[in-house]
Amino acid sequence: MNKLTPQSKNFADWYNEIVQLSDLAEYSDVKGCMIIKPYGYALWENIQEEMNKRIKAIGVDNVYMPLFIPESYFKKEAEHVKGFAPEVAWVTHAGGKKLEERLAIRPTSETIMYRTFAKWVHSYRDLPLKVNQWANIVRWEMRTRLFLRTTEFLWQEGHTLHTTEKQADEMVDQALELYKNFVNEFLGIYVLNGIKSQAEKFAGAEYTKAIEGMMKDKKALQMGTSHSLGQNFAKVFGIEFLDQEGKKQTPWPTSWGVSTRMIGGIIMAHGDDKGLVLPPKIAPIQVIIIPIYKNSDEEKKIKNYIKNLEKNFKNIKYKIDWDHTNTPGWKFNQWEMKGVPVRMEVGPKDVQKNQVILARRDTGEKLQVKLVNLAGNINNLLNNIQDNLLKNSENNLKSNIKNYTDYNKYKKDIKKENFFALVNWCESKKCEDQIKYDTKATTRVYAENKSGKCIVCAKETNKQIYLAKAY
Amino acid sequence: MNKLTPQSKNFADWYNEIVQLSDLAEYSDVKGCMIIKPYGYALWENIQEEMNKRIKAIGVDNVYMPLFIPESYFKKEAEHVKGFAPEVAWVTHAGGKKLEERLAIRPTSETIMYRTFAKWVHSYRDLPLKVNQWANIVRWEMRTRLFLRTTEFLWQEGHTLHTTEKQADEMVDQALELYKNFVNEFLGIYVLNGIKSQAEKFAGAEYTKAIEGMMKDKKALQMGTSHSLGQNFAKVFGIEFLDQEGKKQTPWPTSWGVSTRMIGGIIMAHGDDKGLVLPPKIAPIQVIIIPIYKNSDEEKKIKNYIKNLEKNFKNIKYKIDWDHTNTPGWKFNQWEMKGVPVRMEVGPKDVQKNQVILARRDTGEKLQVKLVNLAGNINNLLNNIQDNLLKNSENNLKSNIKNYTDYNKYKKDIKKENFFALVNWCESKKCEDQIKYDTKATTRVYAENKSGKCIVCAKETNKQIYLAKAY
Repeated sequence: MNKLTPQSKNFADWYNEIVQLSDLAEYSDVKGCMIIKPYGYALWENIQEEMNKRIKAIGVDNVYMPLFIPESYFKKEAEHVKGFAPEVAWVTHAGGKKLEERLAIRPTSETIMYRTFAKWVHSYRDLPLKVNQWANIVRWEMRTRLFLRTTEFLWQEGHTLHTTEKQADEMVDQALELYKNFVNEFLGIYVLNGIKSQAEKFAGAEYTKAIEGMMKDKKALQMGTSHSLGQNFAKVFGIEFLDQEGKKQTPWPTSWGVSTRMIGGIIMAHGDDKGLVLPPKIAPIQVIIIPIYKNSDEEKKIKNYIKNLEKNFKNIKYKIDWDHTNTPGWKFNQWEMKGVPVRMEVGPKDVQKNQVILARRDTGEKLQVKLVNLAGNINNLLNNIQDNLLKNSENNLKSNIKNYTDYNKYKKDIKKENFFALVNWCESKKCEDQIKYDTKATTRVYAENKSGKCIVCAKETNKQIYLAKAY
Repeated sequence: MNKLTPQSKNFADWYNEIVQLSDLAEYSDVKGCMIIKPYGYALWENIQEEMNKRIKAIGVDNVYMPLFIPESYFKKEAEHVKGFAPEVAWVTHAGGKKLEERLAIRPTSETIMYRTFAKWVHSYRDLPLKVNQWANIVRWEMRTRLFLRTTEFLWQEGHTLHTTEKQADEMVDQALELYKNFVNEFLGIYVLNGIKSQAEKFAGAEYTKAIEGMMKDKKALQMGTSHSLGQNFAKVFGIEFLDQEGKKQTPWPTSWGVSTRMIGGIIMAHGDDKGLVLPPKIAPIQVIIIPIYKNSDEEKKIKNYIKNLEKNFKNIKYKIDWDHTNTPGWKFNQWEMKGVPVRMEVGPKDVQKNQVILARRDTGEKLQVKLVNLAGNINNLLNNIQDNLLKNSENNLKSNIKNYTDYNKYKKDIKKENFFALVNWCESKKCEDQIKYDTKATTRVYAENKSGKCIVCAKETNKQIYLAKAY
């Protein structure tokens, strides 16, 4: 059954194969549009549920804005349109007629949000305004990859307005912190966070901050972004408020989002040659129970035995695989491939000994566990696995950051293997482009300031940045 | 503040005004597309949460299919394309190029679902296949109305495949039953349910069943539909499975959906001249607490008093209106307009007497309630309100059904007022069209069989159907 290409052989093939073998998603006939299958969509629902709680907890309300953006709005902010126009899908005909004005399918909703906010905001009392929406987004990408880069994807986009730049900056940080904590605590992925370079920022933003994880192939994945938009968008859409002195002011907007791309992160940060490895907190099935029996007499005994255990499993997402058409061995492989964190085996010997066998998906370790406080022990095991995945992810990232001062040495090394490089950089686009041209690596996020010479042009600078090949 | 048109004066104006005054939704600049504001979106989230539980409980998995449907799929089923083509929005350009094939923005997803199912289904073991998606839908409507009929709307669409026609029929009924129970129990709306006429069925269906509620103006609102699709869709998309004898068979599909239209139903089934009246189970705020005080000393006392009460309010969705810029009287009107089921008033006298005042939004009744078991009493009150709304809705519908055998009398009466008429009908399109032409009423759903003469042509028939003007 398992035709999965090993990661070491070809990580890209491994990724494409496992997404489809584990029934997460597949391509549709419309180029680059994906079909998210039940097992994959369950991951997205778990992400949504937890993120929604966290987003609401910081005082953000959910709304829904139209899918369509009139071309005239879309063109109002110059940098924005320049950044997104090449990727837009246009509706030109509807209801049997040619439209007077073309409608963009939203590639992001800043323009329609700010047009609306201009109607909602009048006084400082209307601020801060903090809304979020869960929506589908369309960007006509040339090269697509399931979850990582698809023509249509699902996301969450927060949009806020503030009275001062400082408050907007704080919101940018708060959203990024929320993403970082979520990704750490729920997805078990360790991330770097910081400011993107001007070339890598969101089209129309003042600055962009991002979280960046390291995948198993040592490439970077940007997993969430948070933008300070300066006052440009607010000005072009005419958003104004009267401050406490009755003076007209322009508010400071931010926007921030994460998408179905996160699922690609889960796959690539934890998966191995056997398939997915899902963090327990996000796994649709946390424990797969596999009964092992040779005849209907044993089957009956095991059924009763499991029925008794189940009563205590109310807080565990479990499933029992009673399928008669496959062997236990086949099932082991199948559920390992699907990344279920814990396998519980129950055979006649276990019934005799009042125990079950638990197998960890992350380490492969097998444990004989007595029935006393079984549910509690399973929960502890799930927590251990969750922690272990984060620890592994942290180790993977931290042990693969290398400092470089010699550009030639860096160029030579990055051709041989992937890693994150920490280098001094003069902040010029020229040097950034040179790095990209020479190595295919891009600047990811700024690190702490430290004096040194730009790795390309040797100019003195106190800026350091991470470089990596990225998805 | 309250410029609300009375329902009796102009129900349509009342509706348009209350949707906007109560901050549920507003139009965007794209014709017919709505912006769902936080208070309105919270209603939709509550609907989603409860419906999702119920849908999953009957073994249906959530998926996500693409927004875009290639024109060639869309055209495969003749009746379907005839029904939907006039309302489709078309993407013709994307990524800076003209597309080789136009893409329809989904007006419903049967075609893309069945194209996909053809890849998923091979054997009887793959059936029944039961999936659902929460998605945005676009239908280019000529005349739009917030929530009731908008160019873009949000919905849930279930799609299933079964081995036999009988199983498909059972699924159609199970989905309709789910809708009926949800609408009864959660939205407090009594509904008729039954089969639609051939003219009123879903384009491409074998038959359609629907639930129909009566609004306060005695017009009908179709609030959910469930379709048996025969085998046409399955055949044109080439879905086949091997049965237990190894013989190729065509499965039997069903589809069923409810949409943001339900929110229009909540508004019109319960609202009154003061504004919305929200059923407690769906209300974003169940209890609005209004502190009443004259000075900061009183304010402080009341703050402490409320703080103590709050501790027991964990299972109640409540909000305290501490706004200093408005009077309690203004707040009373405001929150009545927003339909909050219970208002709690807390003034200095209440503090003295160890009580609070509770006011019911549905009846206007005011109660002095002691603090002993206050949370329990509030929950009882919320349940009473929920039950009372359903009872009122049931009374409204049942007391406004009239039997007619004389067509002239019916025509005369329906010109004067709205109601549901129960009549015999010969099932001919000619008589159905005549009724529509003469009265603007349409057939809603079939009732129990009963012999009689068709109200239009006097032909003997045992079919009875409900007639009503509808949204």
